[in-house]
Amino acid sequence: MPANHALAESSVDLLIVGAGPAGLMLALWASKFDMKTRIVDKKDTRVSTGHADGLHSRTAEILQSFGIAQDSIYRAYHVNEICSWNPKSSNEKEIERTQTVFAQPQNLSRFPLSGLNQGAIERMLEDEIRSEGRVNIERNTIPVALHLEGTEECYENQESSQGSYPVHVTLRNIGPKTLATQIDQVVRAKYVVGCDGAHSWVRHILNMTMEGQKTDTQFGVMDIIPLTNFPDIRKSCVIHSKNGSVMTMPREDRLVRLYVQLGEMAKGSEMVNPADVTPELILEHAQRIYHPYKLNFKICDWHSVYTVGQRLAPRFDYKNRIFLAGDAVHTHSPTLGQGMNVSMQDAFNLGWKLGSVITGAMKPEILGTYNEERRPVAMTLIELDKEMTEFYCKGPSKQSRDYQTFRDSFAGFVSGVSVCYCPSVLVANTSDQSLAGNIKLGQRLPSHKVVCSAEANPVHLLDMMPSNGAWRILTFAGDIGSPSQLERVQQLGAYLELLKTQYSSPEHATMEIFLVYSGSRDFNILDLHAVYHPWDDTLGWDYWKVFSDDVWDFEPCQSPYEKYGVDKQLGCIIILRPDQHVSYIGALDNFNNLSRFFNGVLIRRPGIGERAI
Amino acid sequence: MPANHALAESSVDLLIVGAGPAGLMLALWASKFDMKTRIVDKKDTRVSTGHADGLHSRTAEILQSFGIAQDSIYRAYHVNEICSWNPKSSNEKEIERTQTVFAQPQNLSRFPLSGLNQGAIERMLEDEIRSEGRVNIERNTIPVALHLEGTEECYENQESSQGSYPVHVTLRNIGPKTLATQIDQVVRAKYVVGCDGAHSWVRHILNMTMEGQKTDTQFGVMDIIPLTNFPDIRKSCVIHSKNGSVMTMPREDRLVRLYVQLGEMAKGSEMVNPADVTPELILEHAQRIYHPYKLNFKICDWHSVYTVGQRLAPRFDYKNRIFLAGDAVHTHSPTLGQGMNVSMQDAFNLGWKLGSVITGAMKPEILGTYNEERRPVAMTLIELDKEMTEFYCKGPSKQSRDYQTFRDSFAGFVSGVSVCYCPSVLVANTSDQSLAGNIKLGQRLPSHKVVCSAEANPVHLLDMMPSNGAWRILTFAGDIGSPSQLERVQQLGAYLELLKTQYSSPEHATMEIFLVYSGSRDFNILDLHAVYHPWDDTLGWDYWKVFSDDVWDFEPCQSPYEKYGVDKQLGCIIILRPDQHVSYIGALDNFNNLSRFFNGVLIRRPGIGERAI
Repeated sequence: MPANHALAESSVDLLIVGAGPAGLMLALWASKFDMKTRIVDKKDTRVSTGHADGLHSRTAEILQSFGIAQDSIYRAYHVNEICSWNPKSSNEKEIERTQTVFAQPQNLSRFPLSGLNQGAIERMLEDEIRSEGRVNIERNTIPVALHLEGTEECYENQESSQGSYPVHVTLRNIGPKTLATQIDQVVRAKYVVGCDGAHSWVRHILNMTMEGQKTDTQFGVMDIIPLTNFPDIRKSCVIHSKNGSVMTMPREDRLVRLYVQLGEMAKGSEMVNPADVTPELILEHAQRIYHPYKLNFKICDWHSVYTVGQRLAPRFDYKNRIFLAGDAVHTHSPTLGQGMNVSMQDAFNLGWKLGSVITGAMKPEILGTYNEERRPVAMTLIELDKEMTEFYCKGPSKQSRDYQTFRDSFAGFVSGVSVCYCPSVLVANTSDQSLAGNIKLGQRLPSHKVVCSAEANPVHLLDMMPSNGAWRILTFAGDIGSPSQLERVQQLGAYLELLKTQYSSPEHATMEIFLVYSGSRDFNILDLHAVYHPWDDTLGWDYWKVFSDDVWDFEPCQSPYEKYGVDKQLGCIIILRPDQHVSYIGALDNFNNLSRFFNGVLIRRPGIGERAI
Repeated sequence: MPANHALAESSVDLLIVGAGPAGLMLALWASKFDMKTRIVDKKDTRVSTGHADGLHSRTAEILQSFGIAQDSIYRAYHVNEICSWNPKSSNEKEIERTQTVFAQPQNLSRFPLSGLNQGAIERMLEDEIRSEGRVNIERNTIPVALHLEGTEECYENQESSQGSYPVHVTLRNIGPKTLATQIDQVVRAKYVVGCDGAHSWVRHILNMTMEGQKTDTQFGVMDIIPLTNFPDIRKSCVIHSKNGSVMTMPREDRLVRLYVQLGEMAKGSEMVNPADVTPELILEHAQRIYHPYKLNFKICDWHSVYTVGQRLAPRFDYKNRIFLAGDAVHTHSPTLGQGMNVSMQDAFNLGWKLGSVITGAMKPEILGTYNEERRPVAMTLIELDKEMTEFYCKGPSKQSRDYQTFRDSFAGFVSGVSVCYCPSVLVANTSDQSLAGNIKLGQRLPSHKVVCSAEANPVHLLDMMPSNGAWRILTFAGDIGSPSQLERVQQLGAYLELLKTQYSSPEHATMEIFLVYSGSRDFNILDLHAVYHPWDDTLGWDYWKVFSDDVWDFEPCQSPYEKYGVDKQLGCIIILRPDQHVSYIGALDNFNNLSRFFNGVLIRRPGIGERAI
């Protein structure tokens, strides 16, 4: 359908279709950039109960990077231990606890795996988007037509088309028909992202077919306040009985989420009709599995039925102008609690890239890395999900009896923390991994405590690097008590100042410099090159960029140099992408590698020539 | 002026005059009780800049007990180190850093001394009061008449008058005169509290005269974003120069608060007129003191002038019906950052007592403890304030050169944490202090981490005891792996159940039971007496009252038994007041002491006879 049909037209930089976790995360990123964004959703409100309920460590880290994790982490249930239950060896009709395992290694992230309902997380995202004031969520609104302007050649020459608005989407208000605004409108967008769920309209209009299929495995899911004598009801449990399997996830407000295998129903050739499944029916199945323990409830907050299926889209992008994220490109079972998390992580990967390209800081070709980086994650997830479905459906097994070993094999991945992006224009294979033994190229930088040198304040390093679209050059300066090392750091400072001038404007910092030194804190940071504590004529020196490794935290702590595996004398330099993934690890004096890296990624400021640096 | 003058009349349980930090803290407490409260304030908005700026550890703990410390602590500046500067030994015209000291011992509280402006704290209190929905802050409203009904005898026989509303206050709206509500109204209150500041109308109407006087010492105070090469500008500093003294407190949003001695002006017989003091004039004084360092600013957020005076009211109460809190009963210099803190702590002491008496849980005579407990704190504060004023005014001294020793002498008191209430009806001298070496009778219980046994979750013990008006019986159960010890704990459970029945109704828990055990966490808490995990027909067992000492927190931790100084085998029992101060320490089997204590404080539920327990 052609767009110019006498309808009202407007233009935006970014149009997001769908305001679930992926769409909201993208809108949150967008609201950190100076650009025009719209986000539409067909529903009239966000979800209030049920749905996704697991907040994995990496997602919590991401929320923290926007300054909004505090409250959710405080309110959420923290999953520290998981109990595995199996048929009793002396009486197979009853279950017994066979193992209690750690949900994930304690040093994996500063945030635990948590249980909190999707509605609470969406509200936090909405609140933050609203407080930024740049993006308004338009509900009761659907796209009804999409048209991509121009020829294919247009998109191959990316740079010349950045000023154009080639994606034309017709939007329709489907709310109560009381206003004149019911008339369709056309939005001309530079970029469109479909975050519109498993039945994605955007994916459909692009003629993209999901690969994979549904299985005949069904889980009944419910959020109840349990009345029970089961001793591990407030721990996450993996229960295998002779009557089927249950997976549980305790939550806020006394709720417990139960995933109950609807075993007997699935054995027939007919699938159960979700409309026929009541909480009482799910409970009946659960009661048989929990035997000899009693389980009941008076309050059921939400319930649903999942038919397990694993499906994946062939690509996550279309001609570098239209992108898809979250359920729109991958669907799987809820057993790993990954749906909401991976969807938000998709959008977190995409958001800063779109923002940087739209505002002219980064080259458009970097947008291809979204599909390159996120589709492999979804592929791994789908393989793991198949394994998990089998784990729950095949009954008691070696894996259910040695759950610790099984869990350890995937805990890092499901936490989102060990996800690693391959070398690309954004992840430099010129890196020297040996300089930082515990920092992995392509992975997100773990956060450890450092001491703000000027304030003598222990802070988490990553808390000083909020998600604002800036690249971070993190200088592990080594022992600047040594004059030769200090001299090296000062020379690096002079180089970094030139580099920064090429790519950052005074109004918008594309690049921020941080420094962590080792050794005595009896050091005046104003003696360092000014690039490490930039001056502002109104605000004075920036005291929040130089840190010491002299950490105390009620009790003595390991130095962050040791935690990161960096030599305390020599140090090293790290480049962090705006999403905190490590782009580069190198020596303090290898300026060439730094220049080459940024030259491939960033666009020089107009009027700033190529100086000899 | 008689109250019955054809004016509209209404009645409330509690009328609070003044919505500053003390009044708001009182209103917050009031909103936790099922009673009718009004709070009025003459101003039309709360303060937005300047004023008080120090948030001491105990105040942060109090905010945390209402669940509202997270955000403020996250945003605030944390004062870890204080730098002392004195004239250079080689050149007295310049200053040099002579010592860097810890602001307070690291184990004093889980919350540091913080810098955050009064407006931010008032907003947090207001937000929480609003979310509770029971109390509405009425601005532009002043009291113009107060009348206390009845004879003195009426107040001696407290119990018989609990149902009456003997304090009649006429309120006047002084807002824009556009509404008919301008007409005065009469409020009949059970209790009235004046939190109306240094020029308290309530104190004035009670004919109470403040004792003490103003000095001729003046400080210029300003919040600036400094432009400076002074190396310790982002640390709290105590600076003594030949040209006077400065005390600094860094804050949120790059601000630094400076208290600058207006030395030369104070030397004349004439005091400076505050209206004549500009930020530029304060800066001039500061510049002379900071020499040879440069100090300037472009942004000054707020400024003011304080003339130091120390004054104290003879009593904090009047016939147990009218009370005064905060600046209304004690004023002093701002150098210790105590004004807002002690005011909130006054109100925190008073609020639960009024709430408990009004709702019939506690005996009215306990109200006398407010004056008994808080006036000595104010006396100590005023003595210390005199010492501090002298410290700043007398120039460089032994104390300014050995600031660590001086600071250590008062750090505990100014943090609010070491405040200790003497034995009274609320603090039992039948206690056996030896059973808990690090828990001090009359002091607030420090919070240490324990593990929620059912959830395997490390939590701060005090976070499980939010301020809701309940008394807490904290059972350190010892090693319940030992059958004899378990038996002791079960017998205590049976006794506690009877005790609880006498004083708590199902709707309102006057008493909550907590248990912390030592030893293996492989223990089913449902095997404990039900009083330790109470049953609710709809909500099931309460899993958040039983804790283990098996704490981990990324790194191995000391057991809370060791931190509290409690024997790991034998344990002990602690009674905590609703304000977390320790009322009693005793052996697990000394039931008599428990009965006797609560009998002196709480009112039995109607219809619950005195059983033989």
